[in-house]
Amino acid sequence: MQLGRVVGRVWSTAKAESLSGHKLILVQPVKPDLTPAGRTVVCADACGAGAGELVYWCRGKESSFPFLPDEVPTDATIVGIVDEVHAC
Amino acid sequence: MQLGRVVGRVWSTAKAESLSGHKLILVQPVKPDLTPAGRTVVCADACGAGAGELVYWCRGKESSFPFLPDEVPTDATIVGIVDEVHAC
Amino acid sequence: MQLGRVVGRVWSTAKAESLSGHKLILVQPVKPDLTPAGRTVVCADACGAGAGELVYWCRGKESSFPFLPDEVPTDATIVGIVDEVHAC
Amino acid sequence: MQLGRVVGRVWSTAKAESLSGHKLILVQPVKPDLTPAGRTVVCADACGAGAGELVYWCRGKESSFPFLPDEVPTDATIVGIVDEVHAC
Amino acid sequence: MQLGRVVGRVWSTAKAESLSGHKLILVQPVKPDLTPAGRTVVCADACGAGAGELVYWCRGKESSFPFLPDEVPTDATIVGIVDEVHAC
Repeated sequence: MQLGRVVGRVWSTAKAESLSGHKLILVQPVKPDLTPAGRTVVCADACGAGAGELVYWCRGKESSFPFLPDEVPTDATIVGIVDEVHAC
Repeated sequence: MQLGRVVGRVWSTAKAESLSGHKLILVQPVKPDLTPAGRTVVCADACGAGAGELVYWCRGKESSFPFLPDEVPTDATIVGIVDEVHAC
Repeated sequence: MQLGRVVGRVWSTAKAESLSGHKLILVQPVKPDLTPAGRTVVCADACGAGAGELVYWCRGKESSFPFLPDEVPTDATIVGIVDEVHAC
Repeated sequence: MQLGRVVGRVWSTAKAESLSGHKLILVQPVKPDLTPAGRTVVCADACGAGAGELVYWCRGKESSFPFLPDEVPTDATIVGIVDEVHAC
Repeated sequence: MQLGRVVGRVWSTAKAESLSGHKLILVQPVKPDLTPAGRTVVCADACGAGAGELVYWCRGKESSFPFLPDEVPTDATIVGIVDEVHAC
């Protein structure tokens, strides 16, 4: 998974039917020191992330697992909200 | 998913049989400020996107979900048309 | 999918059994203006592409769909030959 | 798979239900000479890796195989601890 | 698939149970002119590749197909040994 920051939302009326009811969240990937790294991603949300929160998100087919048995056509989903990043 | 702009079409007669009847759309990925970012992608279309429209598209196996039960050999599909991108 | 140009072939005797009988084609990814972009890829072929032809190819598990019910271990397959790229 | 070094942990209370009970580990990808290469990744763990250990990790849907029959929404999992890297 | 050169091995005692018995090979991706390109990858092996050999390897879930019905958690597998690369 990747660390990221919630930086916005995407509004969309016309979409694949199986995406209906899914909120689309704009995530800026970040490094462990929380500085931005790379292009923003449009994510589905499996854990109710709010504006500005630090999250981790999952790519690929497994990003649709939280929505099973629905086959949601998402390739990026927020799967957790970060409490703390702890270096070792 | 990624944000992108519809910038063209690809015409093709000889193709994998399971792609028959699918329109192929050229998408330029864009950043949230809508400037281009990276290489164009040839996408299938699950929502009737038109020339110049701002869309979001999905990669990987899950990009074939909108066409189930057909097993369409696409790795990039437009799954929604953007009404608005809202930063937070 | 990505646009690409057929630039060569790879010959191989020792290979995974499920790849037997599959021609391996060297594809140079190209941009819509048909200039090269990025590293060449070794592709399986689902549509009989010939030397020098402009094609589009598919990545990931869905690149094995044209060969179902065989589970061919390919992650890149040519799924169409391009007649024309039309900007809009 | 990729080589990497365990460099931290991510603590998270709110997460996708199917991730419950999974420790989240921060991995820095490394080159064979063990110098850092690229962005850190948040991994699930299938082999009990400890702080500072050299590991290899797997991406994509197959990174959820060690947890079957659970469909864990992870796209990166540590699948082994490295004893030695031997050049040839 | 990608072209690559076998450049080493990875030894590992503690690993995901489903990886037991699989040799782990260090592959340096190469361009068609056989010069190195990009980061080395840790691959499983489906065709008995030896030190220094030129191979092609497959990424993603389909890299586990050669080991079916086992669900091996690999995302990179050598699926063939190259006899010759022929430009056209």
